[in-house]
Amino acid sequence: MKVLVLLSGGMDSVSALHFAAKEHEVVAAACFHYGAKHNDRELLFARRQADLLGVRSYLIRLPFVGEEFASDLLENGGAIPDGHYEESTMKQTVVPFRNGILLSVAAGLAESKGASGVVIAAHSGDHAIYPDCREDFMRPMAEAIRSGTYAQIAVLRPFISMTKAEIARVGHGLGVDFSQTWSCYKGGETHCGTCGTCVERREAFLLAGIPDPTAYLQTSPLPQKPREC
Amino acid sequence: MKVLVLLSGGMDSVSALHFAAKEHEVVAAACFHYGAKHNDRELLFARRQADLLGVRSYLIRLPFVGEEFASDLLENGGAIPDGHYEESTMKQTVVPFRNGILLSVAAGLAESKGASGVVIAAHSGDHAIYPDCREDFMRPMAEAIRSGTYAQIAVLRPFISMTKAEIARVGHGLGVDFSQTWSCYKGGETHCGTCGTCVERREAFLLAGIPDPTAYLQTSPLPQKPREC
Repeated sequence: MKVLVLLSGGMDSVSALHFAAKEHEVVAAACFHYGAKHNDRELLFARRQADLLGVRSYLIRLPFVGEEFASDLLENGGAIPDGHYEESTMKQTVVPFRNGILLSVAAGLAESKGASGVVIAAHSGDHAIYPDCREDFMRPMAEAIRSGTYAQIAVLRPFISMTKAEIARVGHGLGVDFSQTWSCYKGGETHCGTCGTCVERREAFLLAGIPDPTAYLQTSPLPQKPREC
Repeated sequence: MKVLVLLSGGMDSVSALHFAAKEHEVVAAACFHYGAKHNDRELLFARRQADLLGVRSYLIRLPFVGEEFASDLLENGGAIPDGHYEESTMKQTVVPFRNGILLSVAAGLAESKGASGVVIAAHSGDHAIYPDCREDFMRPMAEAIRSGTYAQIAVLRPFISMTKAEIARVGHGLGVDFSQTWSCYKGGETHCGTCGTCVERREAFLLAGIPDPTAYLQTSPLPQKPREC
C-alpha cells in the first residue's frame, strides 16, 4: 500500500517510518512545525531520517497554533513541567486537538500524493492525558478520514497494541539509530532527562533492555510511574 | 453557548455568523486562506462581516494546501469549470479533506479561546460531490471532535436540514447584506455568474424570492440542475 507517515522525529514515529518503509511504499512523510518549543530540534531528526530512507518529507508549518492555541508545549506557553508523563501537571502540555489537526492535514496531503493510507505511531501508552490519543477519538477520526476522502484513506496504527518499550525493540530490530531521534519537550540542544517525554524515553530503553544512546542533562533516578486510577 | 464560527465570506457562512450572533455568544470567527483562487476576495467579506458584528476574526493561513494539494480550486490548479455544481466535472474543485482540516483547526482554536461549540454552515444541498460534506463524514468527525477535546466541543450545524435558498431566507430575515458576501470560485473582482458556486448563488436567490444584489459578468440562463442518480 502507498502510505504517508506522520513523522515528528521522536523515537516512535521514526520507528514507524522504518517499519512502514519495510511493509509499504512510503510516498511521503509529513513533518509539522506548530510553534512548539522543541519543533526546530525534533524536525532536524525527522528530516535526517526521511532522507536516510529516500522518503520525500514535507515540512508543514502551522504558525497559528503557536500564536493562538493555549498550551505550555508552545513557545508562547509556560515552562514545561518535570515528572512522569501521566501526572496531571502534564495536562498543561496538551495542544488542543493536535492529533485531529495533524491527521486531517496528513489525510488531505496523502490523497493529493496518491497514498491510500496514513501511518501514525500511536501506541498503547499514550492515551492517559491526551483526549486526542484515546480510542474514543481515534476510531471516529479514522472513520471520518475514510468517509471524507475519495481514496477512502485508511489510518494505520501498527504500534497501537505495543508499549513504548516494545516500539523501541521493533525500531532496534529495524536498525534505527536512536541517537538520531528527539524527544525532549524543552527545546534545548540536549535532552533534559527530566520532562515527561524524556522520562518516558529513558524508561522505554530501560524496559526494552536496549542501550540508551541519548545524552541527558540530568540522569537522576526515574520517577515512579503513578498508579492508574 | 460560547461558539466559534467557520467563516468563509460566502452567503451560507455569513448567514451562520449572523444566526450564531443571535442565538449564542460568538467568541471568534475562523477564516481560512488555503491558496484557493478566490480566498483573497472572499476573506475581505469575511473580515467585514465579523467586524460588523464586533466578532474577533482569526485569519488562518494554510499555504501548504495551495502548494501541495491537488485541486483546480487552488491557485496552482487548472481552470474552474462552468456549469451546475453537481456535475461530475465539478469534482476537480474538491480540495482533499478540506472540511476535516478546517473543522480540526476550528476545534483546537475554539478550545483555546474558551468556546464549547463550532458552527459550520453545512446544508442539505452540499453533499453531492464532496465526500467531506456528507453525513458519513460529518457524524464521525463531530464525534472525534467531541471526544478529542477536554471541553467536549460540539459541532453545530444549524442549517443542515435547509436548502441554500432557505438559508438565504434566514439570512435575509436577519438583515444580512448579501452584496457583502462572496461566492465565485474564479478569483476575479466580479462574480463570473457561470461557475458552480455562482450558479448555486443565483439559483438560491431565485428560489428564495429575494432580490439578488450581486453584479455578475454573465447572466445567461441558469443551467438545468442535473437529476439525482
